[in-house]
Amino acid sequence: MVRIAIDCMGGDHGLSVTIPACLRFIKLHPDVQLVLVGKQTEIEAALAKKKALELPQITIRHASEVVEMDEPPAQALRNKKDSSIRVCANLVKDGLASAFVSAGNTGALMAISRFVLKTLDSIDRPAIASSLPNMKGKGTLMLDLGANVDCDPSHLFQFAVMGSAFVKGIEGIDRPTVGLLNIGEEVIKGNEVVKKASELLRASELNFYGNVEGNDIYKGTTDVVVCDGFVGNVALKTSEGLAQMLGDIIKTEFKRGLWPKVAAVFAAPVLLRFKKRVDHRRYNGAALLGLKGIVIKSHGSADAYAFFHAIKRAYDAANGNLLDSIRLTMSHYVPLAAPAASSAGEAVVVPVEAKPDQVI
Amino acid sequence: MVRIAIDCMGGDHGLSVTIPACLRFIKLHPDVQLVLVGKQTEIEAALAKKKALELPQITIRHASEVVEMDEPPAQALRNKKDSSIRVCANLVKDGLASAFVSAGNTGALMAISRFVLKTLDSIDRPAIASSLPNMKGKGTLMLDLGANVDCDPSHLFQFAVMGSAFVKGIEGIDRPTVGLLNIGEEVIKGNEVVKKASELLRASELNFYGNVEGNDIYKGTTDVVVCDGFVGNVALKTSEGLAQMLGDIIKTEFKRGLWPKVAAVFAAPVLLRFKKRVDHRRYNGAALLGLKGIVIKSHGSADAYAFFHAIKRAYDAANGNLLDSIRLTMSHYVPLAAPAASSAGEAVVVPVEAKPDQVI
Repeated sequence: MVRIAIDCMGGDHGLSVTIPACLRFIKLHPDVQLVLVGKQTEIEAALAKKKALELPQITIRHASEVVEMDEPPAQALRNKKDSSIRVCANLVKDGLASAFVSAGNTGALMAISRFVLKTLDSIDRPAIASSLPNMKGKGTLMLDLGANVDCDPSHLFQFAVMGSAFVKGIEGIDRPTVGLLNIGEEVIKGNEVVKKASELLRASELNFYGNVEGNDIYKGTTDVVVCDGFVGNVALKTSEGLAQMLGDIIKTEFKRGLWPKVAAVFAAPVLLRFKKRVDHRRYNGAALLGLKGIVIKSHGSADAYAFFHAIKRAYDAANGNLLDSIRLTMSHYVPLAAPAASSAGEAVVVPVEAKPDQVI
Repeated sequence: MVRIAIDCMGGDHGLSVTIPACLRFIKLHPDVQLVLVGKQTEIEAALAKKKALELPQITIRHASEVVEMDEPPAQALRNKKDSSIRVCANLVKDGLASAFVSAGNTGALMAISRFVLKTLDSIDRPAIASSLPNMKGKGTLMLDLGANVDCDPSHLFQFAVMGSAFVKGIEGIDRPTVGLLNIGEEVIKGNEVVKKASELLRASELNFYGNVEGNDIYKGTTDVVVCDGFVGNVALKTSEGLAQMLGDIIKTEFKRGLWPKVAAVFAAPVLLRFKKRVDHRRYNGAALLGLKGIVIKSHGSADAYAFFHAIKRAYDAANGNLLDSIRLTMSHYVPLAAPAASSAGEAVVVPVEAKPDQVI
């Protein structure tokens, strides 16, 4: 049985989104246990409104504070020791939940999670990873999407390891292909950090495809695309902006005059199917990878449908033994990733059969 | 009268694209003079096929060599002194053409242009700038799109100056707004290079809006968006990939079964208008800014319609006195941009009335 803690107060819409999403999730996954974290009376009122106070899958855990969406992370970490995010992180740390989901302030979520849960051994920095839809109909896992603006080659290498482990754990792909985001496919392309990261990846046992370019994300050339957080965040937000613009223009065109409106009626089922195929809400839920616990970040503006998918992601990550998968994959590369390492050739490769807890 | 040199041999399709584009351009702009550069007999044959050998707006300039699309730039620069790109650059350098257009090898085009034309005084590195469509129905000029993978703050600042001057010269906007591409709007966001560039821009007389995010490119939040070439290239190619995927999915959905095919007939005029509004070919033609001459790079895979727009961009840039505009704008910032400068406050501001040649 999987128990997931939900920060019910986070995001732009708080309870009005998180409660309906939780109820829908329980309906479709009756085996789950959800710990609803936040202001008890407010949560109870929201549940009562939905006639869902007595559900056996739900427990409530009171948290007296809420981190504001624009609050400086350091302040939230220092001053709000009973925030809904902090309480969620503690539940995971204490083994009372396998994962937690929040749509709250990203910076604060990362700072608190890192402080409470700590990073996995041999991981320097956690990264934000999310799936983007691709032409193959699957998702391309991309990381980092904004946690680390200045990366050195070993960070990019660690992102590749974590991304591989994530896709392996969640999607069941045995040796996911990894692409290094660059401005050309040739080995000589790119800045110094990327060139050195490419050498580390080439020398590793990861299924390294080589350099990929921006368009490869949506082509689905590789299962994982690795980049620093600045580049990843720009790529993600640029995509959001383009999708928004195209959507708005197509809507405007179908409303312009009588004929387009008639055409819209005819085209509606097709356009709906199109919309469903590219609906970004289905891809909501970014993983904060590299922590000793599963943390899923929902988009702040998520609606109930999108937040539902973030819970689903936490559920899949917990079921897929994400942390064990990362630990095990990392264990192959400890000497390579550690700063004191001499060369990839000397890496002590731990047999895959070994229990992760024995090798870390 | 504007005279533009055309590299007829460049790009994936060479003469089969460049010649029809030139003929169409002459038809719509009979005041232009085009110098067709490349293998004379081949150009003559292509013109003869279109019964266009005797057009008064056309002259042919023979170039015996062609730079291959995958040729290393240094090799093209060293060994092919009579390539069509090189001859075009020489025509501009010698004042025999106001601008030139090529769909050839980007690296070679940049290397040859830089070698032959030299960079403008007080510009350290040329940048690649291109317009992207935005929700306001205009273009957002974005630079750098891949010429410079490692930039320091003063490079980003120079990109901002050149971008402003370009938009002013071409679009006639008096004080274009400039956004600095970042991963958040807050001043504290971003890496060190971006933070320092932000300080330079804030202290300048440019119309600096502040930080913008990826989605602002397509929102049209600012007239100009500045970033380093790595980030810009990734953003551009990610956009291309997403647009391609969305286009492919919508096509597939309209072909799936009888009803969608009927719907497609009804929706065709609307979809065509949509396609026209977001047609990237209309935005073809990136400017190599910062050189002592106007160089426009067409997409290598451009068709005749797209290549036509690249010629149009060269024509507008020449008519808009692009170089004078950049020189004049830069002249305000020479002390700021030069490495030896002490502070923006001490910048010698040259009156706008001054002739650029007197101040540079």
